[in-house]
Amino acid sequence: MDGSLSGLGDISTPGRVAGPDEGVTAQELALATRNHGLPLEALRYEVTPPGLHYVLVHYDIPATEADGWRLTVGGRVLRPLTLDLDALRARPAVTRRVTLECAGNGRARLTPRPVSQPWLDEAVGTADWTGVPLAELLAEAGIAEDAAEAVFTGADHGIERGVEQDYRRALPLATAADPARDVLVAYAMNGAPLPPQHGSPLRLVVPGWYGMAHVKWLRDITLTPTPYTGFQQSVAYRVRQAAEDPGEPVTLIAPRALMVPPGFPDFMSRTRVVRPGRVPLTGRAWSGHGPITRVEVSEDGGAVWTDAELHRDPDHPWAWTAWRTTWTATPGLRHLTVRATDARGNVQPMTQPWNRGGFANNHVQRVEVLCTPATTETAPAATETAPAATGTTPAATETTPAATEPRSARPPA
Amino acid sequence: MDGSLSGLGDISTPGRVAGPDEGVTAQELALATRNHGLPLEALRYEVTPPGLHYVLVHYDIPATEADGWRLTVGGRVLRPLTLDLDALRARPAVTRRVTLECAGNGRARLTPRPVSQPWLDEAVGTADWTGVPLAELLAEAGIAEDAAEAVFTGADHGIERGVEQDYRRALPLATAADPARDVLVAYAMNGAPLPPQHGSPLRLVVPGWYGMAHVKWLRDITLTPTPYTGFQQSVAYRVRQAAEDPGEPVTLIAPRALMVPPGFPDFMSRTRVVRPGRVPLTGRAWSGHGPITRVEVSEDGGAVWTDAELHRDPDHPWAWTAWRTTWTATPGLRHLTVRATDARGNVQPMTQPWNRGGFANNHVQRVEVLCTPATTETAPAATETAPAATGTTPAATETTPAATEPRSARPPA
Repeated sequence: MDGSLSGLGDISTPGRVAGPDEGVTAQELALATRNHGLPLEALRYEVTPPGLHYVLVHYDIPATEADGWRLTVGGRVLRPLTLDLDALRARPAVTRRVTLECAGNGRARLTPRPVSQPWLDEAVGTADWTGVPLAELLAEAGIAEDAAEAVFTGADHGIERGVEQDYRRALPLATAADPARDVLVAYAMNGAPLPPQHGSPLRLVVPGWYGMAHVKWLRDITLTPTPYTGFQQSVAYRVRQAAEDPGEPVTLIAPRALMVPPGFPDFMSRTRVVRPGRVPLTGRAWSGHGPITRVEVSEDGGAVWTDAELHRDPDHPWAWTAWRTTWTATPGLRHLTVRATDARGNVQPMTQPWNRGGFANNHVQRVEVLCTPATTETAPAATETAPAATGTTPAATETTPAATEPRSARPPA
Repeated sequence: MDGSLSGLGDISTPGRVAGPDEGVTAQELALATRNHGLPLEALRYEVTPPGLHYVLVHYDIPATEADGWRLTVGGRVLRPLTLDLDALRARPAVTRRVTLECAGNGRARLTPRPVSQPWLDEAVGTADWTGVPLAELLAEAGIAEDAAEAVFTGADHGIERGVEQDYRRALPLATAADPARDVLVAYAMNGAPLPPQHGSPLRLVVPGWYGMAHVKWLRDITLTPTPYTGFQQSVAYRVRQAAEDPGEPVTLIAPRALMVPPGFPDFMSRTRVVRPGRVPLTGRAWSGHGPITRVEVSEDGGAVWTDAELHRDPDHPWAWTAWRTTWTATPGLRHLTVRATDARGNVQPMTQPWNRGGFANNHVQRVEVLCTPATTETAPAATETAPAATGTTPAATETTPAATEPRSARPPA
């Protein structure tokens, strides 16, 4: 063997935070190119189209097959179950529209930055999940009197911070077995079989909880009499200030509002451009703690707030709430901010309290918008014209500073 | 207006390369969280499932509607056309399986790093695209004698390097109008209407060319008598050494092979772990210049190469070619490398020639693999066990260094 090798500890190191001026690392980039967020303009869709819903995969997407897949339900149950897909599909199907957010959303905006999947604001999505209520499966299996938790095991296998593991998480039975919590063993997303990256053929859906609870590629449910202390429960997904703190578990989603960035973007800076006048602002807001009761927008960084109209769909209590308002844009560089409040009185913070893993962040979104002046003498920029079908050079204005629409009658200075 | 505002030039700056020790910037990260690559384990699928195909969107995904969408064909044609989706679907449908790669794939591995979408190796995917051959539409419109190029305009609008524009690219008619090149105006991907991020409701598909040619949200085709010199043709997508060089245009895809990373990964480092013994290695290879004729794998960084078996499907000449071989893993840290050769004799380089925009890279893929020893005394790492249904603590081994499978009979030192 190589003399340089000293074991798995060399390739799987403890969690850390970035140094004061440390840019995003190659390892964080490798995660960012694999996993992806919701492009924020896709907030326009009430149900996120396939491929736009956020995806976070800890290890590899496993090579699963629906044929032959078995879900076992065991441990502290009276009648252990082994179910294939047909057996699950034969039961009455339940569909729930659920907004799902990654527990690490917003991590890359923290200072210092916890080094992990580097989300900004976009690790969210909403889907219609179809499956069997977990409460019904547990009732069928019969919960032993001393059972306290349900432990869910996925088929994805890897190493994390030195621990080799299948991805595994637990829920207290107070959540797992409560029909009102609507926990599902889901086999369909938006009316189609689960895509590979969303847990094909089976996943858990836990409405209101951050994504880590929604175990994908679900193959086993084991009821236990004592709290589960595995890696993803006791090491990862804890809100803590220092590595040695036990910390608090990450559970329900904190309230968050996001806006569809108005106008159009610059490719590289993603700064938005709008024309002066009334600009509709729309977006969505959600909380795992209860209904969204208020969404406010500010154009001045939070000095003055304007209430947005909310459009909640009572048929979909676990899905995000649409909001809209109108902003009167005047020339200048603006910083739009949006914040949500939920029925429990939780409000998004303007500055994010820090935690070492970068979990459960819900600081307000800030969108930089340049409102261009009605006349253009201070805003030189080239505008590309449509191709000419005549013999002249088709895009002569590209190399000449020219007005953006609406065009100025005055030639560029 | 704000005194700080001096115009669009402030939010849309010229292209640049990163400084010697400059980590990935916040702007690059914002692109990386929006756009996404193919998770490399998804190379296992001949046709990439929805949501796993790479996506690169320059501006926003536009809010398009198939109802009422019109494609215009004009300029130097004899009979201008205006076609809706029904008119396109009424024509004989053609389906082509096409491997598509972003022209910027590999950019983030260059030194110095061009600052743009920071791809590593994964900006690729293969889909079955269904639509109408462009050559047939052009024949129907009648190509004027002096027409030289077809210019394609999408509905996505933004600013890039100071130029406000709709996304627009041209093809020489020698390509656009040649039935043998199989250029399609496509309305379906893998048998379903195009998803929003892949150009709904219409896009161009140009087999063998890098992604920038496959104009999404296609709304206009204009034939011109002179070469098109718009931003995406003459400024972007050129292979150049310095900003002032005219450079060479990016066109056909250079050969590349990628491997499904073997074994299982560490979450953060993405380093792979395998057990000693025979390990199947599989992957796919492609080139826009012609069929793949050879794929070779090395376990020692390129000193010794082993030929892989190729499995080309003659029904799908524009799609990637599957390859496979077997590697005998022995304990140690290994660097697997794979390289492809095409029928034109193009071979992937071991070190990438640099260019300022980071286009058309095709350096070999390198995969770091740790083969664990059969015994474990040099590889201390915890292994998580399944949850216990008894009253004992379920995961006691997590905090104790323990053997990875296969387990050693010897206790940890």
